[in-house]
Amino acid sequence: MGAIIKGKPVADSISEGIILEVKELKERNIIPKLVAVRVGENESDLSYERGAFKRCSKVGIEMEVKKFPGSISEEEFIAEIKKLNDDKSVNGILVFRPLPKQLSEDNIKYIISPEKDIDCLSPINVAKLMENDNTGFVPCTPSAVMEILKYYNVDIAGKNVVIIGRSMLVGKPISILLLNENATVTICHSQTRDISMFSSKADIVIVGVGKANMIDESYIKEGAIVIDVGINICSNGKLCGDVNTDRCFNKASMITPVPSGVGSVTTSVLVKHVIKACKLQNNV
Amino acid sequence: MGAIIKGKPVADSISEGIILEVKELKERNIIPKLVAVRVGENESDLSYERGAFKRCSKVGIEMEVKKFPGSISEEEFIAEIKKLNDDKSVNGILVFRPLPKQLSEDNIKYIISPEKDIDCLSPINVAKLMENDNTGFVPCTPSAVMEILKYYNVDIAGKNVVIIGRSMLVGKPISILLLNENATVTICHSQTRDISMFSSKADIVIVGVGKANMIDESYIKEGAIVIDVGINICSNGKLCGDVNTDRCFNKASMITPVPSGVGSVTTSVLVKHVIKACKLQNNV
Repeated sequence: MGAIIKGKPVADSISEGIILEVKELKERNIIPKLVAVRVGENESDLSYERGAFKRCSKVGIEMEVKKFPGSISEEEFIAEIKKLNDDKSVNGILVFRPLPKQLSEDNIKYIISPEKDIDCLSPINVAKLMENDNTGFVPCTPSAVMEILKYYNVDIAGKNVVIIGRSMLVGKPISILLLNENATVTICHSQTRDISMFSSKADIVIVGVGKANMIDESYIKEGAIVIDVGINICSNGKLCGDVNTDRCFNKASMITPVPSGVGSVTTSVLVKHVIKACKLQNNV
Repeated sequence: MGAIIKGKPVADSISEGIILEVKELKERNIIPKLVAVRVGENESDLSYERGAFKRCSKVGIEMEVKKFPGSISEEEFIAEIKKLNDDKSVNGILVFRPLPKQLSEDNIKYIISPEKDIDCLSPINVAKLMENDNTGFVPCTPSAVMEILKYYNVDIAGKNVVIIGRSMLVGKPISILLLNENATVTICHSQTRDISMFSSKADIVIVGVGKANMIDESYIKEGAIVIDVGINICSNGKLCGDVNTDRCFNKASMITPVPSGVGSVTTSVLVKHVIKACKLQNNV
């Protein structure tokens, strides 16, 4: 019978560390600051924003939201990002994505300062991830997965890890992070002929595909660790993950729930990245 | 019994295509040009340089070598790279690596123009690889592996591919390229507990670890396709790969030799990248 491993204790543990770091920074008159850049009034952006605000105020980080109308031109938007790049009081910039159509992420990713790009929009940070250069910033969700594995003392080196999903925000970066930590990594996806053939042999299964309850007990081996990165609206209208937790619970040794799993850790990772950026910028 | 699949026909086929492209470019008064940047007199650099020269003259691409003394300072070196960036007659820049100690690759990679960086030194090209943006340049060796698979009509989508080795020049980029082509990809390395457990189930095995003859028939399944990226000096003083070709030959369906395998394709890929750079720079 498996243990449900929740995100909250992980988030709390990260926050505790951050609170001490913020205290030390403030003693040097450095006030860490995050700016979230939001275009329009997307509900999922607003929800993440509220969570980030709560987390920042808890740990003592200043947070400001720059709100722009959904109709902002790319030229104006780029000018605003440049202002934030140049503003020395700003340590981290979080741009809510996806952006409306007239704003090309492919143009904006080259504008944001890599040093302030705490959610890995800039190609410089994508390359640093690939090169295992830890002066960069990894996207918050993959980073949250790594924090969960560390908090629950999951040994990664030499383990057989199967990742289901190959997106730029989840599957690809997680596979590189785990590879850098010496896991043997297999990446499965929609074109994989028989995902369960791979995942049912894995010590750790990480799922991020966006299909509600896709993974049942036939996909995992006895004692596997299962991390569910999916967030879907189920037929009953409630939030659910890509993993059918009820059906996998008895077979897995540890399993993250949805909600209250990976998603609960992302804002803590976000503030952790702000502190990292702040320290690098101030040579602390 | 397997077929030895050599690099030469692949290289010749690429060159044939390039010759036509060069002809078309010259009709528009565009003369594609590669500059190789060499510091010191490293024998493997010189050998690659000779191969590149031969290939360039065969396909009609201009090639120049900028030679610098092993003692050149980083400041001078960077100034030289910037000159090449600014020189409109230069379409591709190849920097021989590794560089001597006083020249930090980590600094120089930010200097080279991504548009001319035909061997993927720049982080912009590393990120484009990761993001499956084909306006970038992939390192020549992984690119050569893909060309071989395509030339010999190896179906990649949905196949179980095991990559042994996780270097920035071979294993990591190849895994991303294969993932982008819909393979199910597993990356094994020195910390993998039992590599053969993974590789012996794979449809395609790609090896780049730098250990002479490490892979014998126990590592592959009947009918597997085996691509050997290793180049080592064996105990008998001859060149050999990471795969023991003699022992795997009967079990594999196709296997690349060393020498005359992947290595024979890299200069063709190099000139292909020069043409791509030239066309992008001239909006052709």
